Amino acid sequence: MTRLVMKFGGSSVADIDRIRNVARHVKREADAGNDVAVVVSAMAGATNSLVELCRAAAPIHDQREYDAVVASGEQVTSGLLAIVLQDMGVAARSWQGWQLPVVTTDAHAAARILDINAEEPIRGFARKEVAVVAGFQGIHPESGRVATLGRGGSDTSAVAMAAALRADRCDIYTDVDGVYTTDPRVVPKARRLDRIAFEEMLEMASLGAKVMQVRSIELGMVHNVRIFVRSSFDRPEDIDPDRTPPGTLICDESEIMEQEVVTGIAFSKDEAQISIRSVADKPGVAAAIFGPLAEANINVDMIVQNVSADGKTTDLTFTVTAADFERAKVTIAEARDEIGYERLDTASDVTKISVIGIGMRSHAGVAARAFRALADRAINIRAITTSEIKFSLLIDAAFTELAVRTLHSLYGLDKT
Amino acid sequence: MTRLVMKFGGSSVADIDRIRNVARHVKREADAGNDVAVVVSAMAGATNSLVELCRAAAPIHDQREYDAVVASGEQVTSGLLAIVLQDMGVAARSWQGWQLPVVTTDAHAAARILDINAEEPIRGFARKEVAVVAGFQGIHPESGRVATLGRGGSDTSAVAMAAALRADRCDIYTDVDGVYTTDPRVVPKARRLDRIAFEEMLEMASLGAKVMQVRSIELGMVHNVRIFVRSSFDRPEDIDPDRTPPGTLICDESEIMEQEVVTGIAFSKDEAQISIRSVADKPGVAAAIFGPLAEANINVDMIVQNVSADGKTTDLTFTVTAADFERAKVTIAEARDEIGYERLDTASDVTKISVIGIGMRSHAGVAARAFRALADRAINIRAITTSEIKFSLLIDAAFTELAVRTLHSLYGLDKT
Repeated sequence: MTRLVMKFGGSSVADIDRIRNVARHVKREADAGNDVAVVVSAMAGATNSLVELCRAAAPIHDQREYDAVVASGEQVTSGLLAIVLQDMGVAARSWQGWQLPVVTTDAHAAARILDINAEEPIRGFARKEVAVVAGFQGIHPESGRVATLGRGGSDTSAVAMAAALRADRCDIYTDVDGVYTTDPRVVPKARRLDRIAFEEMLEMASLGAKVMQVRSIELGMVHNVRIFVRSSFDRPEDIDPDRTPPGTLICDESEIMEQEVVTGIAFSKDEAQISIRSVADKPGVAAAIFGPLAEANINVDMIVQNVSADGKTTDLTFTVTAADFERAKVTIAEARDEIGYERLDTASDVTKISVIGIGMRSHAGVAARAFRALADRAINIRAITTSEIKFSLLIDAAFTELAVRTLHSLYGLDKT
Repeated sequence: MTRLVMKFGGSSVADIDRIRNVARHVKREADAGNDVAVVVSAMAGATNSLVELCRAAAPIHDQREYDAVVASGEQVTSGLLAIVLQDMGVAARSWQGWQLPVVTTDAHAAARILDINAEEPIRGFARKEVAVVAGFQGIHPESGRVATLGRGGSDTSAVAMAAALRADRCDIYTDVDGVYTTDPRVVPKARRLDRIAFEEMLEMASLGAKVMQVRSIELGMVHNVRIFVRSSFDRPEDIDPDRTPPGTLICDESEIMEQEVVTGIAFSKDEAQISIRSVADKPGVAAAIFGPLAEANINVDMIVQNVSADGKTTDLTFTVTAADFERAKVTIAEARDEIGYERLDTASDVTKISVIGIGMRSHAGVAARAFRALADRAINIRAITTSEIKFSLLIDAAFTELAVRTLHSLYGLDKT
C-alpha cells in the first residue's frame, strides 16, 4: 500500500468535466488500495477574477482581506471534487486550510507554511476516505485569519501535505509529461528525464523550466518528498497500473544510480547585461553598485567581477531582466559619483545558458568542453559564472538556438 | 451612540460600484459615531452559479460539501466590502461564520443558528472598527464544518447578529422602501407603514409580502430585535441624519402607540381548493386525509371543517398551492378507500385574502364588516378561517383586485 498526494492545477479542474477526469485519476489510485490526499487549485481563471475584484475594490488593499477573498477559489474546487468523487462511489471529504489546520506565517498573500496537522486525513485513510485539500492556503493561528501562499502556492501545499503525511510520493499532474533535458520547442531531440535530483531541478526551475514552483522543490528537498511530475492529459483508463507511467521523478541524488555528468540545459532570453568599466578595486564598491539596485527593487542575476590587473581598477558585469534594463541603467548612472567608474557598456540582446548536472562535482573539464564547442561555432562568450553543479554563459541572443543544440549534443543529451 | 447591524442583499452588492454605494451607507453610520456590524449576501448570481456547479457535479450530493462550496460567495463579498471601507478611511475587517464563530446545527444547507460569539466584533467597536460579517453561514462545532442556513439566510444572520450584539436596531436594506398595507401594484392607494408588530409582519411575510424571510422575523420577535426595512437605492449623501429615513420598523407591539385595528391585507393568487364531500365525522379521518398529503410533501394551507349537521358526515375543505393541485387530487383519490367520502369538488382559480391586525384582538366584528362589504359587491366567499390577529377568505381569483381594494378602503388603509 502506498500513501500518495496527488496535485492538480487550475487547468485540470477548469470545469466539471475536467474535475470528473481528475476524479477518475483519484479513483484509480484509491481503487488500487492507496491512501490518497488530493490537493487542488482554483478553477482556471477563478483566482484571476478574484484578484481583479480586489484590485477594483482598491488598488492598494489589506492583504488579509485579499486572502479572505482569493482563498475562496480553492474552497469551491475542493468541495466540487469531493462531490464528484462521492458520486463515483469513492469516500471523500474536503479540507480547507483552516480546518486541518495548515499553519502559516502572517505574511498574508505570501505566507509560508509552518506546520500541517494531518491527523484527521490519516484517520480518514483508515476509513478509505480520500482527503481533498484546498491548496494555496492556510491559517495564521494567532489572528485566526486565512493566509494564502502566493501565486502557484498549490505546488507548495501539495509537497508540504506529502511531508506531513509522510507520503511515499507527491504526484504533480501538469500540462507537460515531465522534465526535459531542455526546451523541446528549441531542441526537438530533447529527452524526458526519468529522474532528476532536487538540486538539479532547483537550477532548472529557477532558470526557466516552468514545471514547478521553486519553493515547492526546496520544500521537497528539505523534507525528502519524492515528487513525480506527470501529465494530467493522460486518460485514467489508459494507464497500466503495472507500469511506471511517463513522467519525471524529482528525488534525492542517492536515488539516481547512474548520474549523468550533465542533466539538462536551461536558458533565459530575457536578459540584459550591464558592464561597468574601470571601477575602483576597493572595499565598498560592490555595495555602492548593488545597494541602489536593490532599493529600486531590481533583481540582479549573474554578477561577474574579475581580479584587477593593475590592482587599482577592474570591470564588473551583471545581468538583469530585459524589463528592468532601462531602470537599471538609470540607477547606475545616478550613482556614478558614489561608485566612480569610467563608462558603462550595455547589451540587451543577450541570453543566459546554464548547463546543469550534479555529476559536474566529480568531473573536471566539463565547462572547458563547452567553451571549445562554442568557439568552434564562432559563438562568443560574454561572461561566465559557475557553481558546484552548473555553469552559466552569457552569449548574443541570436546564437541561442545554435548554442543550446550544440551543448545538448555535446553532453550526450540527445534522444536516440 | 447607537449599535447597528446593517444588512445588504445580493443585488446591493452585485458589483464593485454597488459595493462602494453600500460602503458609503456604512461610512455614514460609522461617521455618526455608531458601532456598526454589516451582514452581506453573495454578489447577485454568485450563489446560483455555485449551486449550479454542485448540481452539475452530482444531482444528489453531500450537503456538507455543498455548504463548503456555496459559503464562498459571502466570503468574497465580505472581504471586498472590508477593502472598500478601508479605502474610504473606515477601519473594517471581514468575519466568516467560522471565525466568530456563528454556531449552527448540523442540518447542512438548512442549518439553524444556535449561538453567535460577538466578543471580537465588540472589541473591534472599541477601536471604531466595522465588522463585516459573511451572511448565510456558520459552523457546526462538533464536525468543524461550514453550514449554511438555506436560501435567504442572510436576513436571519443579520437579525441573529443584532441579537448577539444587543444592537439597538437591525437595518435591512432592500429593493423596497418598507412594508406596505398591501401590494401597491394592485392597490395604488397602498400606504407604507411606519411601524408593524412582529406578529403582523409574520402574517404579512408568510402570506406573500416578500420583504423578509419569515424565520428572520420569528427570530426578531423572540429576541426583540427592532428591524428597520429601508431602501438600498437611497443615495447615502441624500440622507438627512437628523430625520428618520423612509422605511418600516418591525417591532414589539408595545412600541406601537396607536394600534390600528387592521394593519395590512395580504393575498395569494396561487391557490387551489379541494373540498371533500360527506366524509365520515369520526376520529382518524383528518389523519387519513392529511397523512398521505404530508408524505407526498404537499404543503396544506387553509383547512376548514364544519361541525357535522347530522352527526355522521361532514364536508372538509383545504387549500394547496396551484403547483401541488394535481398531485393533491391524485393523492386524495388514491386514499379514497381509507378516508371514505362521497365526492371531491375542486377549484384552481381561487385567491386567499388575509386581513391582518393585532387590533382585532380587542375589536369585535372586524370580519363581519368584510363579509358585508364583499357581499355588497356580489363577491362570494368560498371558505373562511380565522386566528387571533387575522382572518382569511377564499374567493374566486377573478375578484382578487376588487376584493383587496374594497377591504383596503373599508379598513381605512388608503393613503390620504
